[in-house]
Amino acid sequence: MQFLDSIDSPEDLKKLNTEELIVLAQEIRQFLVQVISKTGGHLAPNLGVVELTLALHKVFDTPADKIVWDVGHQAYIHKIITGRRKDFGTLRQYGGISGFPKRTESPHDAFGTGHSSTSISAALGMAVARDIAHDDYNVIAIIGDGALTGGMAIEALNNAGVMQKKLLVILNDNEMSIAENVGAMSEYLGRLRTDPTYSHLKSDIESLIKSIPTIGEPVAKTAGRVKDALKYFLAPGMLFEQLGFTYIGPVDGHHLEGLIDILERAKKVDKPIFLHVITKKGKGYQPAEANPNRFHGTGPFDPETGEALKQQNAKNTYTEVFGDTVVQLAQENSNIVAVTAAMRDGTGLTKFAKTYPERFFDVGIAEQHAVTLAAGMAANGLSPFVAIYSTFLQRAYDQVIHDVCMQELPVVFCLDRAGLVGDDGFTHHGVFDFSYLRTMPNMTIMSPKDENELRHMLFTALSLRRPVAVRYPRGSGLGVLTDECLQLLPYGKAERLSTGSDVCIWAVGSMVAHARQVMLELSIDNISVTLINARYVKPLDEEALLKSVENHKLLAVLEENSVIGGLGSAVLESLNKNGSSEMAKVMTFGIPDRLVPHGDKSLLLKAIGLDPVNIAANIKKCLLKRNR
Amino acid sequence: MQFLDSIDSPEDLKKLNTEELIVLAQEIRQFLVQVISKTGGHLAPNLGVVELTLALHKVFDTPADKIVWDVGHQAYIHKIITGRRKDFGTLRQYGGISGFPKRTESPHDAFGTGHSSTSISAALGMAVARDIAHDDYNVIAIIGDGALTGGMAIEALNNAGVMQKKLLVILNDNEMSIAENVGAMSEYLGRLRTDPTYSHLKSDIESLIKSIPTIGEPVAKTAGRVKDALKYFLAPGMLFEQLGFTYIGPVDGHHLEGLIDILERAKKVDKPIFLHVITKKGKGYQPAEANPNRFHGTGPFDPETGEALKQQNAKNTYTEVFGDTVVQLAQENSNIVAVTAAMRDGTGLTKFAKTYPERFFDVGIAEQHAVTLAAGMAANGLSPFVAIYSTFLQRAYDQVIHDVCMQELPVVFCLDRAGLVGDDGFTHHGVFDFSYLRTMPNMTIMSPKDENELRHMLFTALSLRRPVAVRYPRGSGLGVLTDECLQLLPYGKAERLSTGSDVCIWAVGSMVAHARQVMLELSIDNISVTLINARYVKPLDEEALLKSVENHKLLAVLEENSVIGGLGSAVLESLNKNGSSEMAKVMTFGIPDRLVPHGDKSLLLKAIGLDPVNIAANIKKCLLKRNR
Repeated sequence: MQFLDSIDSPEDLKKLNTEELIVLAQEIRQFLVQVISKTGGHLAPNLGVVELTLALHKVFDTPADKIVWDVGHQAYIHKIITGRRKDFGTLRQYGGISGFPKRTESPHDAFGTGHSSTSISAALGMAVARDIAHDDYNVIAIIGDGALTGGMAIEALNNAGVMQKKLLVILNDNEMSIAENVGAMSEYLGRLRTDPTYSHLKSDIESLIKSIPTIGEPVAKTAGRVKDALKYFLAPGMLFEQLGFTYIGPVDGHHLEGLIDILERAKKVDKPIFLHVITKKGKGYQPAEANPNRFHGTGPFDPETGEALKQQNAKNTYTEVFGDTVVQLAQENSNIVAVTAAMRDGTGLTKFAKTYPERFFDVGIAEQHAVTLAAGMAANGLSPFVAIYSTFLQRAYDQVIHDVCMQELPVVFCLDRAGLVGDDGFTHHGVFDFSYLRTMPNMTIMSPKDENELRHMLFTALSLRRPVAVRYPRGSGLGVLTDECLQLLPYGKAERLSTGSDVCIWAVGSMVAHARQVMLELSIDNISVTLINARYVKPLDEEALLKSVENHKLLAVLEENSVIGGLGSAVLESLNKNGSSEMAKVMTFGIPDRLVPHGDKSLLLKAIGLDPVNIAANIKKCLLKRNR
Repeated sequence: MQFLDSIDSPEDLKKLNTEELIVLAQEIRQFLVQVISKTGGHLAPNLGVVELTLALHKVFDTPADKIVWDVGHQAYIHKIITGRRKDFGTLRQYGGISGFPKRTESPHDAFGTGHSSTSISAALGMAVARDIAHDDYNVIAIIGDGALTGGMAIEALNNAGVMQKKLLVILNDNEMSIAENVGAMSEYLGRLRTDPTYSHLKSDIESLIKSIPTIGEPVAKTAGRVKDALKYFLAPGMLFEQLGFTYIGPVDGHHLEGLIDILERAKKVDKPIFLHVITKKGKGYQPAEANPNRFHGTGPFDPETGEALKQQNAKNTYTEVFGDTVVQLAQENSNIVAVTAAMRDGTGLTKFAKTYPERFFDVGIAEQHAVTLAAGMAANGLSPFVAIYSTFLQRAYDQVIHDVCMQELPVVFCLDRAGLVGDDGFTHHGVFDFSYLRTMPNMTIMSPKDENELRHMLFTALSLRRPVAVRYPRGSGLGVLTDECLQLLPYGKAERLSTGSDVCIWAVGSMVAHARQVMLELSIDNISVTLINARYVKPLDEEALLKSVENHKLLAVLEENSVIGGLGSAVLESLNKNGSSEMAKVMTFGIPDRLVPHGDKSLLLKAIGLDPVNIAANIKKCLLKRNR
């Protein structure tokens, strides 16, 4: 490509004039579609920030200046023009470049992100560090309108507003978080977008820009109410002004010249600036513009048509089975409500939202509020199902303990994407939930061996009338038949799936299917295996466990959770508590205590030794040692 | 007392007219001072809400109507007039009534609280439940101006604003959270308070009240900018109006008649109302008015003078030693900064704030932001010490993993009030931190045996240049001499304190001193003990541990943390991983997997069997069994 092929650093980009940058923007869009159609990735968010990213690198100088990308899945262009163009084809592949900014990947990645709403806090911290060191670089946070609903972003705005450090916060406003955005903040931004001054601004951007120093003055503190009212009349974005920022915008996020101009001017201001930029998710690629939600995060697709390259897979996903089951339960129980945090589609609640709109609550990116909202609902007679990915429920750790468990309220937590999630990598692996949920008094934790058992677990969880967490993996189920009629699973009881004499495997969730492969491996050596599906991580079936350990030479525990504090630890704690002298027989297999990178899940499992072949080999080795 | 003695339920209160209620308010203040001067407790916050509480119970009907007290330490008057007057002398005592609302204590306590900023979420959940059930009760959240800086409160406002449920949020604005308040929101509230309409409002409250229905209309959506500007001119509190609430206020929180009147009118509105009430912390008791911070939470004091009844205790608290040590470290290292979340005094940072104001950051009640702010600072060269109570760091669980540990940034977390905190009870016990921190990759966890070791641990933590958590208990140290010169403690190494042959005790933190008492008990039976101070919970000194278990008949692990996932589990995991066959020798002692109530810490330890006598008895019993 004419310009892109020569961009190996931001320096190369700075040599181009505006007309050339506009051509470069088109080349980048082509390149993004070309690569992501093969690798998969977050296409639509990146198509929306092409001009913004180019303008940022034209005006600012990374790595001296610090750019913090909130969430970070929109940093592809940033990666491409900061020396990672040639590696871009390895995006999200095992051993390749990450789909998120990583400090270890490039000095241009000032701060690693993945979870939402962290950028303003991190950027403010950098601005503080800069001023203490009497340094003079720029710090820029780019945050989406969805991420702005996350409480910590507002905590940060509140703090930044009063600290008055030189700091540029750019609101990348595409009118949607992942699906459409919700909340009063979103409606407020909508009012700003439709404000008559916006069109005025677009046609004559210069006039407002010139007034920045005036807006930046602390007028509010000295002026009387009448003058304030005038200011409200003149300047939109007063909510941000009230929080201590100078608000500029909204400006057109695809008008490269205007963006460069306004960034140059913002750069000169020594106070917190809130720059409101309007972008279009999927911009410039028709299928993504037409369906930005579908192209938010996508697998491989045909770049001509946008059609997904279908993996021939008729199996239902856990997400789909969850969604169908909750609708089925809600038909018979009018107290059931569903709560999600900006993940209606992702968690499988689209059908529920359509069927029971008045019982469906998408609170936006606000996991803390979601959990305590559900606690309030449960305190007054409802049965909430709270569907949040395992990794994102970490945000509400305290609320799950303090508001739900301590009051023993009947909230069912549905943790999708538990275990290794693959391409998104370590910020998104859901490998801590058994550990962090298990310490909570009054909590019950289950995990299904297949999609059919998920159905019965949800039904059982509802019946328990207490805090319950059900966690299940990303992606397809095993393709088993599902029972129409829902059954109660005996409380705290494990399920024996096969009976042998040498080794007993206690597996949970996704690892039950895995254990069957381990059994196959072991059968080659005529090692006879008992397979137990733990079902419950808390309470643990201690009676069955004690028998298992007594009646076998070895007890192997398999889980897709950290080896610290998870099912393996629960087994050790239980045997110890019960005075068992057989603990030397226990082997635990799980996620090691280090960051597991991104890439295909089966490659990751191999890399950490959690593939069936390696597990079987370790069991054999241990048996040999014991037989000697 | 004339009226108070006959108040056994809100019904009794409703019989009184305004003049009588004003007398009752004075009686309640006397009663509060009288009781709390003996029991200790949150005096100043309660003195501030006497009239507000009486007005609420005059106008609303609990338990049918739901009142949610944010944080909850200001709910004493609510407790007194909802049937708990006669028990009020047992406040915060073991077996007595709790210092916080508890659903199990009274049907009038609609929602349990303790941690900040949960009330709007819970109340909104209740409003949803009410509407789904086609019920018609009122839901009221009372939140302080400090709690409003917590991100989840804003998440909730954002969601409530768009849902437009009938919901009354009362801002109890006393211009301070625990100490003075910080942040742009606080400055904004300050502007509202000094607004000329406020005095107008006080003198002629009726006129504004009459305009409520008009203000309540969704003017913003239909009116043009000019009309909006007029509205800004007329109505303060536009920030809350922008978020979808009808703002009323500010009103005088000690004017009983005005409060009753405005609550009666607010009750009739079917939309979210934000009622801004100005109160004075400590109101009506001169020593508390003069020094509200000192009387926020107080121990026993002389009611005449307000002087604290000094416990004769010359020992420094861990908090004080922490505060002094960080100042000492900061003298020699200009990169050290300190971050706290509304707990400058509580965490011991007052001296630091005075000595290094430009390196001190109180972000308000905003633990999530505090942690990621520190991560940003650390990413750019600073060495932040983040001082947050153990129980409150739960709020930032995800940020500690995602922003600090995953990037291996040199942030030192200083967890005060770890272990059982006594009178505040289960919402505030810091008994999960070993468990939740231990699962985090790259985290180092230490806990000192005494205040002198705390000093060396802080120095060591700083030197490690990685994520470190140091946790220490509430209250006094052991009274040991402290070394002026700071030393590096060997990384990941335990410390042997005495050598014996029968039993080896591995203790950590506060439990090391406890273990010495256990040794005394055991010595009666001539049981010889090796005492190991673990120092590090992560990484564990596995070499020393293996030796300990091999060379003794029994290994007892003592910690003031949940028995699930803490040091005991770490010991079991380690022995198992290292193929030790001695695991049956291990006994773990810690906080059991249930809610531990409030009360004197020594009583609590006895109640859960964690007193030295019981631990020793259990060790003896186990030794006997093994010797048989």
